[in-house]
Amino acid sequence: MPPVSAARLARNPLITPQDVQPSRPDWEVVSAFNPGVARLGDEVLLLLRVAERPREQAGPPAEVVMLDLGAPAAGATGELIAVPLLDLVSPTPRLVVRYLDRSLPGLDLSDPRVIKYGSQVYLTALSHLRLARSRDGIHFTVEDQPALLPSGPLEEFGVEDPRITLIGQDYWINYTAVSRHGIATALASTRDFHSYQRHGVIFCSENRDVTIFPEKIDGLYWALHRPVPAGIGVPEMWLASSPDLVRWGDHRVALSPRPGAWDSHRMGGGAVPLRTRRGWLEIYHGVDAAGRYCLGAVLLDLQRPWQVLGRSAQPLLAPEAEFEQQGFFGNVVFTCGALLIEGGQTVRVYYGAADSVTAAADLSLEEILASLA
Amino acid sequence: MPPVSAARLARNPLITPQDVQPSRPDWEVVSAFNPGVARLGDEVLLLLRVAERPREQAGPPAEVVMLDLGAPAAGATGELIAVPLLDLVSPTPRLVVRYLDRSLPGLDLSDPRVIKYGSQVYLTALSHLRLARSRDGIHFTVEDQPALLPSGPLEEFGVEDPRITLIGQDYWINYTAVSRHGIATALASTRDFHSYQRHGVIFCSENRDVTIFPEKIDGLYWALHRPVPAGIGVPEMWLASSPDLVRWGDHRVALSPRPGAWDSHRMGGGAVPLRTRRGWLEIYHGVDAAGRYCLGAVLLDLQRPWQVLGRSAQPLLAPEAEFEQQGFFGNVVFTCGALLIEGGQTVRVYYGAADSVTAAADLSLEEILASLA
Repeated sequence: MPPVSAARLARNPLITPQDVQPSRPDWEVVSAFNPGVARLGDEVLLLLRVAERPREQAGPPAEVVMLDLGAPAAGATGELIAVPLLDLVSPTPRLVVRYLDRSLPGLDLSDPRVIKYGSQVYLTALSHLRLARSRDGIHFTVEDQPALLPSGPLEEFGVEDPRITLIGQDYWINYTAVSRHGIATALASTRDFHSYQRHGVIFCSENRDVTIFPEKIDGLYWALHRPVPAGIGVPEMWLASSPDLVRWGDHRVALSPRPGAWDSHRMGGGAVPLRTRRGWLEIYHGVDAAGRYCLGAVLLDLQRPWQVLGRSAQPLLAPEAEFEQQGFFGNVVFTCGALLIEGGQTVRVYYGAADSVTAAADLSLEEILASLA
Repeated sequence: MPPVSAARLARNPLITPQDVQPSRPDWEVVSAFNPGVARLGDEVLLLLRVAERPREQAGPPAEVVMLDLGAPAAGATGELIAVPLLDLVSPTPRLVVRYLDRSLPGLDLSDPRVIKYGSQVYLTALSHLRLARSRDGIHFTVEDQPALLPSGPLEEFGVEDPRITLIGQDYWINYTAVSRHGIATALASTRDFHSYQRHGVIFCSENRDVTIFPEKIDGLYWALHRPVPAGIGVPEMWLASSPDLVRWGDHRVALSPRPGAWDSHRMGGGAVPLRTRRGWLEIYHGVDAAGRYCLGAVLLDLQRPWQVLGRSAQPLLAPEAEFEQQGFFGNVVFTCGALLIEGGQTVRVYYGAADSVTAAADLSLEEILASLA
């Protein structure tokens, strides 16, 4: 297969945490990444995942409310770990900080993204969705206020990784909803990116990396989704159909990890599928045994999207730049959206790098199609 | 709360493996359990889960095809383990036996139900669904042939635990579909229990213990389901709605395990919900820290089934009889269906015991309702 050259934009990273106002003065932005992508009028819009955590303070926090772990609360004698989350107990749900004693026996902090205590898992940072606007698709202005904040018990730990599918005049935004009940996928919609409507959870735990096709096929909507089974099975990409974008069924397996390949360990949908003359082009992520997140492509039949016509033997984009290799969680390139630009000849892939920043790379559509085996 | 007395039928167990003809002469029936329940005409029908495995033979099997584990096949020098499954490679899919070398390093046989080898999991027995008929709901005649056999890649390891919901003239049968892709829930339908139509997978991996409500609420069908998340979260009972019984969404959490209780460890829907004047009565199973499977009840609001009106503080039925405590997998009572009998005063719960046999117990509806806190 001929190689595909990915041209990273010279301005990369396009958006960094420094470009984003925190949603509270006592919080800091850790990451601005994994954006959903849309065109509205003559603008390119990115709906960023903005991860925040309480700013480290000189002294102890003014008010310390410990996290209820269901275990006898030992006095907070050790160093404190701050956990940002949606308080569901107060009459008006709001984002709060709860604390854990770092000296708690059995606490697992080996992954910088999560705090594990027995069967309980918390996130070290809480994500919301934030809009960034651009005329040229390269220079972005990030809005000062969140577009979508966590809401309700299934978003207690945050909302993440939006994908935006334009169908008619409506932009359908599916995003990851994280809570003590697991990692699920919820749906919202907007026409103007000012007011948003929520449509609840469309794929229950554990399921993320959902990408909705931009048109009906055979009278139904279609989506790729990525359940993670607990007992039997590995993370695979499934396909489902829906009459209304809210209720999904007729699930079938579309794509499985390949032993020894760049997507051997786990995988999931990435960008919203792009219609090409040869089929639906889906840019997806794969993870190898070393934990490296790369991007590659799969081509699905236009009329029978469960039929795989070709797939990247090698990644289209691997974490090679410094901002891709180092960050909050390094060695990651991860996409939630891509655009066809330059008259449809070029695929511009927007992607999160190292779970920290937002970047983009341009790839020739013909080169991608020719590379799929 | 007043105690509830469960009257086990004197004839228990009603159906045992000895009552069931194996589907192949060289296989044996291990279990006949966890039946879905329906009334058709003046008959009570049980759709049994029949688990079979290759009969142990005096000598080595005539033909030995080893399971492809993706590892270099060592010569079968040790004792063989037989794995029954659906062969998806042959042009006409059929049930076959594949073999594993018991001396394979890393093989985990600690659970009698499964064979684990790295991330790969196989079942020691393969289940199909078999019909049993009765005039009195007590004496059953088991049909000689399977009603529903595994079919297709998502049923490679068998079909299990059917629930039957009558809506209009159609009996909707949801059942567990087990394969290398995980444990999912599929749907079939019938009007006569002679011909069946399949409707694909309605809840993707990992999700079982689905019970569909017998009527529409607010214009939609509703079901309890039980996803098992891999990362964050524990097995909980969720609720979803559907326009057509095939595609499901608007997922929300209905019921969670309670620390220290009989349903502390895991739980899942059991019988198809029974309409009572006070609410939907759902008999569900819970598992405690010791791994004991018990049955209890939850009452859900008739119009807003996500509202829990009451729940069993103590089990309604715990494994106490010998056939419940000892068997293929002991200390289990597990239901997939119940009937209101005696003018609606008595709940007859049909249940699988010890993953081996089928039994039934009668409970007073008023006593159950009065017991729910």
